[in-house]
Amino acid sequence: MTPMSEPSASEPAPSDSEPANRIGPWTRRSRAVAYENPWITIWHDDVARPDGSPGIYGVVHFANVAAGAVVLDDDDRVLLVGQHRYTLDSYSWEIPEGGVPDGESALDGARRELREETGVEAEGWREIVRFHLSNSISDEAGVLFAARATSHGVATPEPSEDLAVRWLPFDEALEMTIDGRITDAMTIMGLQRMALERAQPTASSPAPSEGEIG
Amino acid sequence: MTPMSEPSASEPAPSDSEPANRIGPWTRRSRAVAYENPWITIWHDDVARPDGSPGIYGVVHFANVAAGAVVLDDDDRVLLVGQHRYTLDSYSWEIPEGGVPDGESALDGARRELREETGVEAEGWREIVRFHLSNSISDEAGVLFAARATSHGVATPEPSEDLAVRWLPFDEALEMTIDGRITDAMTIMGLQRMALERAQPTASSPAPSEGEIG
Repeated sequence: MTPMSEPSASEPAPSDSEPANRIGPWTRRSRAVAYENPWITIWHDDVARPDGSPGIYGVVHFANVAAGAVVLDDDDRVLLVGQHRYTLDSYSWEIPEGGVPDGESALDGARRELREETGVEAEGWREIVRFHLSNSISDEAGVLFAARATSHGVATPEPSEDLAVRWLPFDEALEMTIDGRITDAMTIMGLQRMALERAQPTASSPAPSEGEIG
Repeated sequence: MTPMSEPSASEPAPSDSEPANRIGPWTRRSRAVAYENPWITIWHDDVARPDGSPGIYGVVHFANVAAGAVVLDDDDRVLLVGQHRYTLDSYSWEIPEGGVPDGESALDGARRELREETGVEAEGWREIVRFHLSNSISDEAGVLFAARATSHGVATPEPSEDLAVRWLPFDEALEMTIDGRITDAMTIMGLQRMALERAQPTASSPAPSEGEIG
């Protein structure tokens, strides 16, 4: 365990730190990069907590925005991608999703991931959910879209990936989020959002658009 | 950026590594602790990817399971907790949720977080969603429960917390997940799940139970 650091207010900030910084009721006294790879940076911060007591905060900063797509075909089947998740050492069925780097829009990223992972083209793209995945520890943000499949093609996944593709009746996929066969949070949010639109067609959600976003 | 490491198969594994380890189509060649605090450990792994090519994997390992509770009162209002999230530097309204350490059940943890953050007691607890929050990077798992409020009390938050508590009409809270005022993934999943139960009372979700789980 990293011991709790108790910076003294009478000492100047360390030379590698940023100036004291207010973050709502928190104060950041210093920040150091504890780890970095192309996908995440870990910041180790010395902080004053809302009650003024000294503490630490380890923040997982994501380089990319998460984007995903709930894609339905004319037979009301939804497109799922299966892969063995290294972090969990278990197989996971999910909507097509991936990381969107700076300089690419979330919509372009979702469309690209869909094409790369499944070879499917789709239209009628519209945003359905915006979210933060684990805000006590990370700043990871994400966006989900809905779209209708218009073509099937040949997937061109990255060589590091080992993906399977399935078209599943929408109701069966939704059932998998209830019985625990699907556990991916982005997939749960996307399928539930679409199911609510179907169940409550007069609800306040934006009407499906035939056009493209942005 | 951490440079890509390319371990040679002809060299013995470093002394601080675990033996080569199969993880589905991946192979872990070594693991090192890159960072550790009481809540997360960062593992930096050298791996062989599904196509055999060398790579790295940074895994965010969570010490705790995430647990949350969708608590409704007799006036169909849902209990939300507001706080400034350090990671995002923004205010967030969420269902009561927190980390459950080893040795505590998810249900006990959800009940404890509810009591600490809001002072509310509830009954009729039942599990509604199990999930993984960000499985491309972390092994964070979570469980959501639904319950009915039976009493109000005095919150006893940890001194490091600065929390507000609100009872909001359920439909308004759900609307907040659609218009972007609520972005917390656990809250979105929980409110959506409850809304689906209401919209589809004959759906395959487990019927509400009056009893306690486990």
